[in-house]
Amino acid sequence: MGSVFAAIEAGGTKFVCGIGTGPDDLETIQIPTGEPQVTLDAVIHFFRNSKRRPDAVGIGSFGPICTDRSSTLWGYITSTPKAGWRDCDLAGPLGAALGVPVGFDTDVNAAALGEAEWGAARDVKDFLYLTVGTGIGGGAVASGKLIHGMSHPEMGHIRVPHDILTDPFPGCCPFHGDCLEGLASGTAMRARWGVAGDQLPPEHPAWALEARYLALAVVNFGLTLSTRRVILGGGVMHQAHLLPIVRQEVERLLNGYVEPPELVAPALGDMAGVCGALVLARRALNYEAV
Amino acid sequence: MGSVFAAIEAGGTKFVCGIGTGPDDLETIQIPTGEPQVTLDAVIHFFRNSKRRPDAVGIGSFGPICTDRSSTLWGYITSTPKAGWRDCDLAGPLGAALGVPVGFDTDVNAAALGEAEWGAARDVKDFLYLTVGTGIGGGAVASGKLIHGMSHPEMGHIRVPHDILTDPFPGCCPFHGDCLEGLASGTAMRARWGVAGDQLPPEHPAWALEARYLALAVVNFGLTLSTRRVILGGGVMHQAHLLPIVRQEVERLLNGYVEPPELVAPALGDMAGVCGALVLARRALNYEAV
Repeated sequence: MGSVFAAIEAGGTKFVCGIGTGPDDLETIQIPTGEPQVTLDAVIHFFRNSKRRPDAVGIGSFGPICTDRSSTLWGYITSTPKAGWRDCDLAGPLGAALGVPVGFDTDVNAAALGEAEWGAARDVKDFLYLTVGTGIGGGAVASGKLIHGMSHPEMGHIRVPHDILTDPFPGCCPFHGDCLEGLASGTAMRARWGVAGDQLPPEHPAWALEARYLALAVVNFGLTLSTRRVILGGGVMHQAHLLPIVRQEVERLLNGYVEPPELVAPALGDMAGVCGALVLARRALNYEAV
Repeated sequence: MGSVFAAIEAGGTKFVCGIGTGPDDLETIQIPTGEPQVTLDAVIHFFRNSKRRPDAVGIGSFGPICTDRSSTLWGYITSTPKAGWRDCDLAGPLGAALGVPVGFDTDVNAAALGEAEWGAARDVKDFLYLTVGTGIGGGAVASGKLIHGMSHPEMGHIRVPHDILTDPFPGCCPFHGDCLEGLASGTAMRARWGVAGDQLPPEHPAWALEARYLALAVVNFGLTLSTRRVILGGGVMHQAHLLPIVRQEVERLLNGYVEPPELVAPALGDMAGVCGALVLARRALNYEAV
């Protein structure tokens, strides 16, 4: 019998919780993200009422977060603009309530680990997982290891060219206005067009504009990391017509200078994050660095 | 007695060659970059006439280059726009002429290794070496290892916001027009203002514009890699008044969202590349991966 792991993808909209030994026997629920205390109580209630006892818990969280094990803020969400969640301890209360070791990283780093182990990155050591949803974030793996740097990448906040004549929308990032997330997240699409992306037909000009911003991002990340593959997940990417036009625009922008990275959908779909949280839990149990 | 190494920084303007056991006893010359055959002959002549016999040679080259040891193109400069140097073998003729093992990487990856061993990055494991000269390039170290990915980063070619109302210059990159290198390299400065950067006084508006583009680049690289320190080298950075205004603009752009990376000058100055080539040579002799 393998170890049992509690896995949590802590998102700004919902918490996906799962318990199991791996993706195949994972029992999951979704809890809408409300006030921190209420949300964490619901998460703890789910795990305590499961038939299985976890040996460790893994948390992939929205951020920015503190991933420095030597800091008193390790396991906290830090400077998020999301109301109520700033400076909120996730790892502490969850580890204490379940009485097990805790693995903690960003939601996108977790998703990258999940796709590396069971999904679209099993055969590569240099890739990027990018999510385009309520926000935009990325987790990068180089030579088989997650890039952490000072803490973790915040790829959603890079600046990309923004032609205000063709796109007068000023951007919606509370920190940066028209950074990538401010221009191309699901939140930005809704603010620019007045409806959610999934309400816009494939021929709507919104999609060419969205593809342009995402291609600029893929090009910038690809040139910075020389990454072989980019896995594009998140709610906005549910529109299957979007990926091919992003791919085309990436080729046009690179103009033959270097080989474009492969662009693919996540093989684990929306389960990449919670599956990656299983990996975080296993590594915490085995005292492995992430 | 330590091993003796031949070190070459192969640049688009000049080749810096050195021979020695380390930076302290390095005997160097500079050879202007002309036709490949003529240039390589001059390089070989220097090493053959040195009093010391090298045990290995390290080459840090302008690019793009092929760093794949399993490819028949390993050791070549590949798709460079520089006349005569496209698909040019560097490692083959130099290794054969000197009869020693060859280490080969980009000039900026070499510079990063040099600064890590003897310079401004001795105390950090996550940093970036950025050169702003004739072209723009970057070498990134994450968790103490160079990022290679598919081959090597090409950071100079990221796209950054370009306000054509305040800066009507269309950019000078033959592949991408107004990519970072097309807007902010020394070549771009000369094309935009009609004189080289070192002819422009500190109060000239050229410098605020240059700082803006470099800050956008630092912000994008910093957010992608969560890098702790950025070492800014190259001819354009010789203007000492530039670094403080880049630093200011980086803080303004990040707006408190994440901690800005430290911006510093290379401790090895213009010798970072050739010193890093010593490290490439040593690693080749010891069969160490770069």
